[in-house]
Amino acid sequence: MSILKDKSPSSTPISKYGEFGLINHLSSQFKCTLSSTKRGIGDDAAVLEFSEEKYHLLSTDMLVEGVHFDLSYTPLKHLGFKAVSVNVSDICAMNGIPSQITVSIAISNRFPVEALEELYAGIYTACREYNVDLVGGDTTTSISGLVISISILGEVDKQKITYRSGANINDLVVVTGDLGAAFLGLNVLKREKKVFLENPGSQPDLGGNDYSLQRQLKTEARLNFVRVLDELKIVPTSMIDVSDGLSSEILHLSKNSEIGITVYEEKLPIDYTTMNLASEMNLDPIFCAMNGGEDYELLFTMSQKHYEKIKKDVDFTIIGHVTDISSGNNFIAKDHTSHKITAHGWDPLLKKDD
Amino acid sequence: MSILKDKSPSSTPISKYGEFGLINHLSSQFKCTLSSTKRGIGDDAAVLEFSEEKYHLLSTDMLVEGVHFDLSYTPLKHLGFKAVSVNVSDICAMNGIPSQITVSIAISNRFPVEALEELYAGIYTACREYNVDLVGGDTTTSISGLVISISILGEVDKQKITYRSGANINDLVVVTGDLGAAFLGLNVLKREKKVFLENPGSQPDLGGNDYSLQRQLKTEARLNFVRVLDELKIVPTSMIDVSDGLSSEILHLSKNSEIGITVYEEKLPIDYTTMNLASEMNLDPIFCAMNGGEDYELLFTMSQKHYEKIKKDVDFTIIGHVTDISSGNNFIAKDHTSHKITAHGWDPLLKKDD
Repeated sequence: MSILKDKSPSSTPISKYGEFGLINHLSSQFKCTLSSTKRGIGDDAAVLEFSEEKYHLLSTDMLVEGVHFDLSYTPLKHLGFKAVSVNVSDICAMNGIPSQITVSIAISNRFPVEALEELYAGIYTACREYNVDLVGGDTTTSISGLVISISILGEVDKQKITYRSGANINDLVVVTGDLGAAFLGLNVLKREKKVFLENPGSQPDLGGNDYSLQRQLKTEARLNFVRVLDELKIVPTSMIDVSDGLSSEILHLSKNSEIGITVYEEKLPIDYTTMNLASEMNLDPIFCAMNGGEDYELLFTMSQKHYEKIKKDVDFTIIGHVTDISSGNNFIAKDHTSHKITAHGWDPLLKKDD
Repeated sequence: MSILKDKSPSSTPISKYGEFGLINHLSSQFKCTLSSTKRGIGDDAAVLEFSEEKYHLLSTDMLVEGVHFDLSYTPLKHLGFKAVSVNVSDICAMNGIPSQITVSIAISNRFPVEALEELYAGIYTACREYNVDLVGGDTTTSISGLVISISILGEVDKQKITYRSGANINDLVVVTGDLGAAFLGLNVLKREKKVFLENPGSQPDLGGNDYSLQRQLKTEARLNFVRVLDELKIVPTSMIDVSDGLSSEILHLSKNSEIGITVYEEKLPIDYTTMNLASEMNLDPIFCAMNGGEDYELLFTMSQKHYEKIKKDVDFTIIGHVTDISSGNNFIAKDHTSHKITAHGWDPLLKKDD
């Protein structure tokens, strides 16, 4: 009676495709046909043309318990805030300003109303911080874990829209804020959960790691930097948010812009507390910065003509430059060795690339 | 360590609130502040003002395995089609035309890629039928069941937008198509699943119930009727889609428009196969029509001046009229007895209302 019980001769495991591969495979037959659809799948948000001056942006993200978050160490209020932030970040990555969200939640009956109130308190705080209206949603029971699905609308002046494509040779490669802390925060939480499970009477040792924990738990979208770029009259030539790790995002810009990117180890912005914590946890801070993910900083390219505007701004760090596509994507270590940036990010154990 | 393990003195079960009560409770503190947000939560879709002539509409719906669908009798292709249809239906209920959707899916690894291809084949078919562009989405693993979350954008000429509010006294109450079949289709599927579980060698007996099964499994949004209303130059004064059952939708229009609605048993459009199947299953067809749900027809009110335009159209049935709010919502049975329509719909066992 069930399709799932069929022993079909063709049964391809989902693991054959990565996340992006699966979306691309499933959506390959879909063609956008409406004149109002300027750009569909393939960037941080869809681009829609509803008016003369502006493009409207639409994006969506789903967070699933046990996959994207662990309720044993994630306060629900922080989770609500983060769920909005990751969506706002997608709008920021198009150089846009967020406007409206819808929130759909599937919940188990094991949650009391008070837990949901906590979750919504975080969503509310985020809506106020980003000046976003909650305009719709759906709340349903779940036979299993918590699922949060948020969709977001935003807008951007037509001449300011920034795609992943658009980077030009000799552009500067810039990243906002600093990198690696969110990944280390996650590792602290996992370590303390393990200690707790082995010794349930123990108290978690989270002291001194405030910054990395905040970066992991209270995820902020970099909307402020979108506003600063606007004030500085900088329109990036390409942009993406750092959700999966710097290496992964560099490869997205490279592929979409058909260029190469070279970045320098010595330029990577890493907070000193991140350095110390990585050392304490026997992790390479450069590995954390390149591959950690969840920093939600903005990675962008811009014309060299804007160099003077940001060279003294600590919030913007020039980490490299754009090259011809034939040069590939390269990580230049402090010892001047060059390493190809791969799909899984820079690996410190990788052989020197000749 | 976990908030869920706390034995908090205040722990209110979610069941204290209904679905709408819970959404209202959680969203009560949220106020829309942007000038582009014309209407937030509280109708079938949010209403956004992005341009001079049109409003844009945004809605979202989440379908959860084990709650909204049972994969033991729901073909994945039909499920994909239905997931789009229920969203399109929300846009129709605002008298709008759908334009773009995003699709987020959480899936267990037990699904092979071929199963997902089936699901997307249904989504694709729906996109073509409704002329909607798939412009984004998210695919993620799930530690448990299948979750499908779709968001939809649509548009409507400003002078044609139709809210749940707006019905006027003496307006006619109209429903499209026919009612009750989807609920009976679900009951056939449940019956045959039970037989199958008790006797796994058996074949399901679905013969002769094509219409009700199609109404349950291949849910169609009534976008064609939105177009017909436009051709007839009828702008309804209020409208809603029949997802939860006619009784429930009547109460929504009544509450939002601050009017009463009287409907007549003898007027309810019920297909003859629905009549026969209800009889076979010992169910009251009127009960199915009033409370069954999932018909996804459109229920609307309109000025009497349009009466001549639809009086001979089998697709539109005038089932009653709008009264003063003090008259309440009434169901007039064939024996001329009057019954108050309640939150759980008309109950044939209810005492006569004096």
